[in-house]
Amino acid sequence: MIRHIKIELPAKGRGFHLITNYIMENLKDLPSSGILNLFLQHTSAALTINENADPDVRDDLAAFFDRQCPDGTPYFIHTMEGDDDMPAHVKSSVLGVTLTIPIQNGRMAMGIWQGIYLCEFRDVPQHRKLLATLYY
Amino acid sequence: MIRHIKIELPAKGRGFHLITNYIMENLKDLPSSGILNLFLQHTSAALTINENADPDVRDDLAAFFDRQCPDGTPYFIHTMEGDDDMPAHVKSSVLGVTLTIPIQNGRMAMGIWQGIYLCEFRDVPQHRKLLATLYY
Amino acid sequence: MIRHIKIELPAKGRGFHLITNYIMENLKDLPSSGILNLFLQHTSAALTINENADPDVRDDLAAFFDRQCPDGTPYFIHTMEGDDDMPAHVKSSVLGVTLTIPIQNGRMAMGIWQGIYLCEFRDVPQHRKLLATLYY
Repeated sequence: MIRHIKIELPAKGRGFHLITNYIMENLKDLPSSGILNLFLQHTSAALTINENADPDVRDDLAAFFDRQCPDGTPYFIHTMEGDDDMPAHVKSSVLGVTLTIPIQNGRMAMGIWQGIYLCEFRDVPQHRKLLATLYY
Repeated sequence: MIRHIKIELPAKGRGFHLITNYIMENLKDLPSSGILNLFLQHTSAALTINENADPDVRDDLAAFFDRQCPDGTPYFIHTMEGDDDMPAHVKSSVLGVTLTIPIQNGRMAMGIWQGIYLCEFRDVPQHRKLLATLYY
Repeated sequence: MIRHIKIELPAKGRGFHLITNYIMENLKDLPSSGILNLFLQHTSAALTINENADPDVRDDLAAFFDRQCPDGTPYFIHTMEGDDDMPAHVKSSVLGVTLTIPIQNGRMAMGIWQGIYLCEFRDVPQHRKLLATLYY
């Protein structure tokens, strides 16, 4: 059995945002056992899994990636949409847009400290589309 | 149903290369609904998903990763195959070799700006083997 | 058919550790054809696929990531658990905790030079839990 669920994420500004609960609410009933794929349909944002408790982790992650590939990096050619354009593409590839998570006992079988993040790399908040696929 | 399709990618020199159409041609008929996994069987190249329109994005990505881990990085020990050897392994792990993409309505359910890249990190062009797996 | 296998990895100190054989021993019988997902249930370690032969590659990878995000990075706020705490979270997201690998002819269909690594980013060795999911 395959089930696709389109999820429109709330528009957020630049930063790392915990979306575990939002995704669970949109998935509603999970199968008892299966696989969940989350696929973000954008090239200037990303998905990752990291610490779900301390919001400082999310700020530190944003700070790290903003330093690793700063806005206005001088050798970039693709700068049409502004200083945050090409760095957003770089970070999207480093972190990735597709996550596969096992479903066991009717829940995402993540560790107790793990949460799902939307990583938003553009300054202007945008609605991001995510396609969830359940395989069971 | 599971279907594996071996795909031999054309030999390319170092750089980020858009291979979406090449993969679609090799997959031929897609199921109406399912999951596609693409697995690159190499340790000095990678797969990623990013912008499919402006070739400058691909050049800028290559420029970024070549600066992040330069050829001939002095503290590397594994240098047998040349200055581009160990940096290729680093970039392969940062970007990854396995992508999972949902199939919906008989097509890859990517965003309109998303394309699949082969990221080639070795100077000498090589034929790269990719195993596609359709699950439906 | 879906099968989940819990795997407890041996406690290792900081470094990149080849775990391909350990995982194969724990999976025992593989189906002839399918998909394997490996999901690490932690936020300060990662999984990646890279060169399985020369141990220098593993040391060089560790050296690279330790330089990319050094212990005690001064602008990090989340430092409660020590200088290796927040850098471990960063590296976990860069490399990722979920790998999808095709199964073909009863074996993981990786390239001949590919192996699976546990990337341990904390100094103190810890038992890490991995959930393997076979889909066939």
